Amino acid sequence: MGVQVSEIDYYSLHGMWGAYASFAIGRIGQGAGVVIGNVQPPERGLFVGYRRGRELPRLLPFVPNRKVGLSADSYVDPTTPARPNLPPPEYRFFEPKEIERVVSFSGETWNAGLLSMSVFSFFGEIPDPTTSDPVSSRAFLRPAVYVKLSFDNSKGAEGLVGIFGMQGIRRCLSDGKQGTLLGFAHGTDWGFATLPGKGIDEVMDWQVIDAAFDANRPLRRLASEGALRFNVGAGEKREYVIAIAVYRDGVITAGRRTHGYHTSLFHDLEDVLECALENAGEGLAKARALDTELDRSSLSEDRKFLLAHGVHSYCANTELLLAENGEAVFVVNEGEYQMMNTLDLTVDQAFFELRYSPWTLRNELDNFLLHSSYNDAYGLAFSHDQGVADCFSPAGSSAYELPKLSECFSYMSFEETLNWGLSACLYLHSTEDRSWYEAHREVFGQLVSSIRSRDKNSDGIMDTDSDRCASGAEITTYDSLDVSLGQARNNLYLGVKTWGILVSLASLFSQFEKENPSWASAAQEGAELAAETLVSHFIEEEGYIPAVFENGNRSKIIPAIEGLAYPFLCGAASAVQETGPYGKLIQTLKKHLQTVLVPEVCLDPISGGWKLSSTSRNTWLSKIFLNQFVAEEILGIRDERTQRDGVHALWLRQGSAQWAATDQVDSRDGRDLGSRLYPRLVTSILWLKSTGNSSRTFHRDR
Amino acid sequence: MGVQVSEIDYYSLHGMWGAYASFAIGRIGQGAGVVIGNVQPPERGLFVGYRRGRELPRLLPFVPNRKVGLSADSYVDPTTPARPNLPPPEYRFFEPKEIERVVSFSGETWNAGLLSMSVFSFFGEIPDPTTSDPVSSRAFLRPAVYVKLSFDNSKGAEGLVGIFGMQGIRRCLSDGKQGTLLGFAHGTDWGFATLPGKGIDEVMDWQVIDAAFDANRPLRRLASEGALRFNVGAGEKREYVIAIAVYRDGVITAGRRTHGYHTSLFHDLEDVLECALENAGEGLAKARALDTELDRSSLSEDRKFLLAHGVHSYCANTELLLAENGEAVFVVNEGEYQMMNTLDLTVDQAFFELRYSPWTLRNELDNFLLHSSYNDAYGLAFSHDQGVADCFSPAGSSAYELPKLSECFSYMSFEETLNWGLSACLYLHSTEDRSWYEAHREVFGQLVSSIRSRDKNSDGIMDTDSDRCASGAEITTYDSLDVSLGQARNNLYLGVKTWGILVSLASLFSQFEKENPSWASAAQEGAELAAETLVSHFIEEEGYIPAVFENGNRSKIIPAIEGLAYPFLCGAASAVQETGPYGKLIQTLKKHLQTVLVPEVCLDPISGGWKLSSTSRNTWLSKIFLNQFVAEEILGIRDERTQRDGVHALWLRQGSAQWAATDQVDSRDGRDLGSRLYPRLVTSILWLKSTGNSSRTFHRDR
Repeated sequence: MGVQVSEIDYYSLHGMWGAYASFAIGRIGQGAGVVIGNVQPPERGLFVGYRRGRELPRLLPFVPNRKVGLSADSYVDPTTPARPNLPPPEYRFFEPKEIERVVSFSGETWNAGLLSMSVFSFFGEIPDPTTSDPVSSRAFLRPAVYVKLSFDNSKGAEGLVGIFGMQGIRRCLSDGKQGTLLGFAHGTDWGFATLPGKGIDEVMDWQVIDAAFDANRPLRRLASEGALRFNVGAGEKREYVIAIAVYRDGVITAGRRTHGYHTSLFHDLEDVLECALENAGEGLAKARALDTELDRSSLSEDRKFLLAHGVHSYCANTELLLAENGEAVFVVNEGEYQMMNTLDLTVDQAFFELRYSPWTLRNELDNFLLHSSYNDAYGLAFSHDQGVADCFSPAGSSAYELPKLSECFSYMSFEETLNWGLSACLYLHSTEDRSWYEAHREVFGQLVSSIRSRDKNSDGIMDTDSDRCASGAEITTYDSLDVSLGQARNNLYLGVKTWGILVSLASLFSQFEKENPSWASAAQEGAELAAETLVSHFIEEEGYIPAVFENGNRSKIIPAIEGLAYPFLCGAASAVQETGPYGKLIQTLKKHLQTVLVPEVCLDPISGGWKLSSTSRNTWLSKIFLNQFVAEEILGIRDERTQRDGVHALWLRQGSAQWAATDQVDSRDGRDLGSRLYPRLVTSILWLKSTGNSSRTFHRDR
Repeated sequence: MGVQVSEIDYYSLHGMWGAYASFAIGRIGQGAGVVIGNVQPPERGLFVGYRRGRELPRLLPFVPNRKVGLSADSYVDPTTPARPNLPPPEYRFFEPKEIERVVSFSGETWNAGLLSMSVFSFFGEIPDPTTSDPVSSRAFLRPAVYVKLSFDNSKGAEGLVGIFGMQGIRRCLSDGKQGTLLGFAHGTDWGFATLPGKGIDEVMDWQVIDAAFDANRPLRRLASEGALRFNVGAGEKREYVIAIAVYRDGVITAGRRTHGYHTSLFHDLEDVLECALENAGEGLAKARALDTELDRSSLSEDRKFLLAHGVHSYCANTELLLAENGEAVFVVNEGEYQMMNTLDLTVDQAFFELRYSPWTLRNELDNFLLHSSYNDAYGLAFSHDQGVADCFSPAGSSAYELPKLSECFSYMSFEETLNWGLSACLYLHSTEDRSWYEAHREVFGQLVSSIRSRDKNSDGIMDTDSDRCASGAEITTYDSLDVSLGQARNNLYLGVKTWGILVSLASLFSQFEKENPSWASAAQEGAELAAETLVSHFIEEEGYIPAVFENGNRSKIIPAIEGLAYPFLCGAASAVQETGPYGKLIQTLKKHLQTVLVPEVCLDPISGGWKLSSTSRNTWLSKIFLNQFVAEEILGIRDERTQRDGVHALWLRQGSAQWAATDQVDSRDGRDLGSRLYPRLVTSILWLKSTGNSSRTFHRDR
């Protein structure tokens, strides 16, 4: 099963949950392998292939023409006749047309000739380690992925030699563990291994391909290429399980001193590898269950691909840390930008985390309150992020925001304040964690007050920039789009989001603040003002609301509807019904969407994909997915206009093939414009209906 | 003072003693900066320069045309008009002809225009931290170097802005330390800083050169370029001290779990930087004393350069570790090869370590005994090395040696056994550490027995390869030279070295084993046999001893005399006198040297430099220095034949300019042939007579 893709030449990041590490693979002729503390695929070779009898060896095309480490040349006088240099190894890569690439929820599979290589990196739910016993945490927080490699020599008359190897390794694992592991590692930080078995051995050489297939050479311990070699007899089909793991020792963050959480559960890299291999049955069973769930879902093949691809990159960006005070700190890093816990991503990733690790969302909310909140002239506000590249920013500040700007890198005080509140509402509605609410009760009061105090003319819409901007102006998460989505003041997208949070808070307060009905009514009052204003900006004759209520802006944007998601998912589903208390707003936004969701406006005239704004070709996949969800599930528009997923999948597999996964692309051809290697595309989880398989049922209101 | 060099375009490694880290600098148009856990200079820009008034900024030429990290482009839709991209900064590099490079014992100085930048990396003696108090150890084991930067605006009518900055940083230090440090760091592992002062501030930007000179921009915390900016008023000359430091947290070695020793003395990178800056006066005074010592020595300018350059690279390769059992483990890494404690380097570096850190030599000897000794069919023997790239090899094995070879990568069992013994003799004679001898007494007995049992025909010369070689044959440290120096059996170089160790041991035993005179006589008997055989191979009519006593070999080699160093330095100076007990051997070797030290034989006909072997153009600087010492100090040949240092210095500054320092070069032009970025060139310390400045007087016998 899984989704067989027609375009196979694109990168995937197989993230190791919580380790800020991944196994990157996928571009033809480019590097593949392990990356730690970042998400940029390494320029190192991955050796996967086989030789049958004396035929020419065949390899998957993941070996760039690049030497890693020294070669034998460096040790031997190049002028002496005794040079041990060998001719370059002879082999042939599989041609793309000989290769089948199949994507699944848990990973992916490459089939070529007699080999099949499956990668398993996503295993679903992660329980809170601070309330779990360490033994079970080892199963969930093991920074490892699996590779299942099979060689089908059942029709072979001669033996077959298969290999799995990497460039950049510096030691063999059999040295250290008296044969309990076979494999290779780079220092203390990454490696791959299998359990010993008949016909399996280690090969380490200047040219490991050559050494593996052509010779019986001793381990060249100075070399930087190592491979596991598998001997498959004539008539046999064999399958091998390999673990790829990382270990990040010591204090790994600045600003706040933290260790990788996994170092509290595992002694070293070998411990991670052994644990993974000894429990491979359990790990692979989890992967299988996820794959079955996605296979059986009603999603189209394109949506299955988009969801799986996004999830793998999300995991690659996750980082669970252990602070010196014993607290766990969860961070999602921001793809190529490496910003830590960017709050305008947190709110989009909340849907995913509530399904698989609701405690991480709570952890992020707590961390933001403690380290990234501040009070400006208008009350409580939140910073854009918590730092960059494993360097935490000082309390109350971000790595991103600067004063005196009105575009990219300006403050997002208002939107981040909404984002914290929305994430909190999602968390509380989903988990019913009343004690957490009680502990943060006053923050919710401050939240309403802060939101409303930024609306000077009391029309329900933010119209006042934070004084932190100095002479500049606030922006939104759509920082690199044009003004239609970039300016925060009097912004349609933020207006609906403001309405959404006030409705959600009103619903929350009606449940948790029964004694203080004024809380709910203050929120509701704000929501009503906002709804009224939003509707009032509807241009009847043209059927849409302009993106910004200033300067005669006439941009048409899809994310006008984005904010409807929150009442729907926070226990106020009636608020988003056309016949509900905000029916007029809902009807208006539905009309708006119908107006804009046409070619030349918000459907790209060339590709047919979704354009978030009529005035920009820069479009964002994570937001497309979220808005598709709103269009289909809330506004009931589910037809060929909302089902452009084939285009969107192509954007990722072709236009942005170099980056897994890219959020910002050109709506014409999917060319990457920013936000590469990004975690945010997991908004697509909203497409996946809850099943009994998952212990959390998030979409409780449907 | 110092040595002003005419060729300025070559790399130097300013090693941080014990941290396996350095500040690399020197090639025009190439990268400069910090490297950790290796010795390859980084491809990152170093920004050092100034702008006077509105003149075009001038920079030292250490900024390769290479972007490190993301640029503003990555954040902003490239199609929008609002791109914040700036034109490339305008500045002009100093031309080589405008630059003065001056090398000193402790570091070096670059003068250009109004700026002067001095680097201080070598501070002399390192006391044993396991017997010192931690506070004083912090002064010696601080993984930091200093840069003293001065800007002379004394004739300026306008203000001058100076900068010192690097690519690759990710955070500013003022964030973390409330202004007690100004500077920048890359995560937790490296950074540079100065103490706050008037007119000093931090600049962090996509284009830090531009931002530093042309604008007053806020810190762009997402950027990867940072610089300290110094404002120097009109008519002022100012000097600033900057510390560059590293911190390697966690377990950093595999095979044996160890931490960087400095992590037991320092809390984090900031602690190292603060400690360095607060004690800059003391650190710089030590550097000054060393510089004065070298300046005042009788060495030629070329020898001063060769010594200083070698010492800096040696420090770059040193690594002091703390094992989990609390023991310190000292490692010298082997340059580009990264092998750990290569024993045939240890013996050459012993001269240097006995002067500045005799306890590290003892530590290496202990470690070799415990982890790298073995018994083959002929008795005690030692492995070539202890691992590679921070990965320790299993006990009794090396990363280098393989069976069934007769050339590079074969075993060096015999030579390494000599090397351990010679290093031990040097250590014992220099330190008179009788208790260490007592603790290892039986090893010395095994040593004599092992040496003699490898001489089947009892002529005093090794003629039997270790059974570890299987069908192969032992080699010598000169592994990549031709057979004249490569083959161990019946080898002239090893023969004299064998004689040297037996004489040294006899001298040692006569002191420490007075009760057991048979020990000294067994050693002496072997020495006499060896001397007789060596002399017997002298070809009277041609005036030399052939390099190998097999297969009609007729190579002429300089290192025939190398082994004379040991008796001379181990309390048996009379043994190397022409009138002494081994007068015949000494006279013969002197004749040999006079025969070979002529053009076309062991003086290169083109360059005039020393060729170790008449039959190879591959020549090794570390060994040249050692043999020069023997020729001059022991054999009394000190004339233009032994003073080809100008040629040798050019080899390092021109032929091997890319590598600091290269050991194996082509004798014609100094082109690097191997052993790049090497620690071994500190054999040149033998040239430097002891002075009262040094607490250890090593050459006690002169």
